[in-house]
Amino acid sequence: MTTNTARKEEPAGSANPLESLSALLEEDMKQVNALILENMDSKVPLIPQLASYLIAAGGKRIRPLLTLACTQLYGGEMERAHRLAASVEFIHTATLLHDDVVDESDERRGQDAANLVFGNQASVLVGDFLFSRSFQLMVKDGSLDILRILSDAAAIIAQGEVLQLSTTGNIETSLDDYLEVIKAKTAALFAAACEVGPIIGGQNHDAARAMAEYGLNLGIAFQIIDDALDYAGGQEKIGKTVGDDFREGKMTAPVLFALQNADAKEKQFWQRTLSDKNQKKSDLKQAQEIMAHHNAIELSMVLARDYGEKARLALAEAPDHELRALLDDIVSFTIEREF
Amino acid sequence: MTTNTARKEEPAGSANPLESLSALLEEDMKQVNALILENMDSKVPLIPQLASYLIAAGGKRIRPLLTLACTQLYGGEMERAHRLAASVEFIHTATLLHDDVVDESDERRGQDAANLVFGNQASVLVGDFLFSRSFQLMVKDGSLDILRILSDAAAIIAQGEVLQLSTTGNIETSLDDYLEVIKAKTAALFAAACEVGPIIGGQNHDAARAMAEYGLNLGIAFQIIDDALDYAGGQEKIGKTVGDDFREGKMTAPVLFALQNADAKEKQFWQRTLSDKNQKKSDLKQAQEIMAHHNAIELSMVLARDYGEKARLALAEAPDHELRALLDDIVSFTIEREF
Repeated sequence: MTTNTARKEEPAGSANPLESLSALLEEDMKQVNALILENMDSKVPLIPQLASYLIAAGGKRIRPLLTLACTQLYGGEMERAHRLAASVEFIHTATLLHDDVVDESDERRGQDAANLVFGNQASVLVGDFLFSRSFQLMVKDGSLDILRILSDAAAIIAQGEVLQLSTTGNIETSLDDYLEVIKAKTAALFAAACEVGPIIGGQNHDAARAMAEYGLNLGIAFQIIDDALDYAGGQEKIGKTVGDDFREGKMTAPVLFALQNADAKEKQFWQRTLSDKNQKKSDLKQAQEIMAHHNAIELSMVLARDYGEKARLALAEAPDHELRALLDDIVSFTIEREF
Repeated sequence: MTTNTARKEEPAGSANPLESLSALLEEDMKQVNALILENMDSKVPLIPQLASYLIAAGGKRIRPLLTLACTQLYGGEMERAHRLAASVEFIHTATLLHDDVVDESDERRGQDAANLVFGNQASVLVGDFLFSRSFQLMVKDGSLDILRILSDAAAIIAQGEVLQLSTTGNIETSLDDYLEVIKAKTAALFAAACEVGPIIGGQNHDAARAMAEYGLNLGIAFQIIDDALDYAGGQEKIGKTVGDDFREGKMTAPVLFALQNADAKEKQFWQRTLSDKNQKKSDLKQAQEIMAHHNAIELSMVLARDYGEKARLALAEAPDHELRALLDDIVSFTIEREF
């Protein structure tokens, strides 16, 4: 994603703070991965087959890393963090599986979407299985507070996904509607993943609220950039199909910014391509050109930076710690990333 | 469903013990229904629209009735039972919604399946929402034991559904495979719905185990009869399409009994219709004729009665009570029902 805005200077020796965090928490992530493998096992062979197809493909593992980092930052018991990080990743994976069915995506994490390989039916059911497993992990942990936080997040995610369905193809969608969708479908789980940390650490309500706030705003920024990359990213880098959102008629930040000052002809273009889903081969390129004309990608990044600042502000309430610095770097990384 | 077997004599004045139970627990069921309505509400209008489409259509509400009855039977707090009965019904409804996507069913509870009216996408996501809500209700209840029982049940249900997917169209499926599928996809939730009762009532492990055993075996019997009705029921009575399982190639009890002594020509018939899914219009009728020739419906009922007996035996451990008598009647009713 190329813009004219200055790139935030990276801290010395840490080009990618997610990698630094992974390195710092390497032993913990090994435990999380072991728990993920163990808990996606089942005597029904199709379940580990399908789940490992998706989970082995990688992904950034940003949510479990957040849970681990936020727990360690507040001196919480890491064994509990491992289990809950796996639980959070299972909720995320279940959502992806159900999303692929929903969106008829062609590619996910650089390979064919699971639903194309295994069928919609298996994707729905294995998603349900992982979702149930995530609750079993929470029950093992035994904290009702955490069960409440994560079951609330799960309900919010589902509502966000349904809301997204209702706004799809509707060019009257407002930026507020869009923000409501991404807060629910993405940021709520980021918030929960972070909030769990201080709770494991036995902290008071303020610490939990601050980390939830950090996660929420980071999640919003993360999703805005994801949506910008869907028009501006390089196919080989982001590992998903550029133009997916366009083909599905999703009303995302870059579209909304392009629509804000659209002339009649441009409005017609968006109406035809997104609402009527009447798309020609050259339309994606034209969409990108219209966006460039309206600085829609840059405006999306400015919006993402706003939320990034809010995340940083909330994070400042956390104790001064190497991990806090990395969590701060992750905000910039999330916004400036090209994949 | 007409058979040559004698119909168990109904207790005087109680032609339908489910109705008697509903009448006895009418005030409680009102509370459960109010909780269901309240908790399927959302500021995203599509969610109550879709959920109420399915829930308003009725259904037997057998699972929440079981939770209420088993709680009252053990003197448990009924306010907790209301919440958990709603939770159990939400898990069931979520499963139905995901099942409809999976099975491409045409009809559910006598009307078009939700996925045909609202789309597969909405059905998956509203299912996820109801599933999350069911966990929120459990968290409100606050019993980790009950959270464990119901999250375990949810994981088992999903595994059963995936296992069913793996056996579909496979004429090598054994009766044991089939029983494993229905224990998981149906009976596990019946068992959990019943087990919750003595736990709310503060009973010991033995009482919980006995009621789980009752529910499990009742659920197995219930599903075997459901599967028999899919070939032998009257369309207008069962409110789902006769022949659904046949069209989907499901390996259910009547098919397996027909296969047990099938000659080569019959095997070819099942291979063509269920494995190869190459079906002509007259094939359902022929399937029914082959089943009649092998007494497959009667044998299914005998199998269901076996499990009914096991359910009764477990129930005998419960305290002597009007409700116990009704729960006993429900076993016969489940097996002899024609819808």
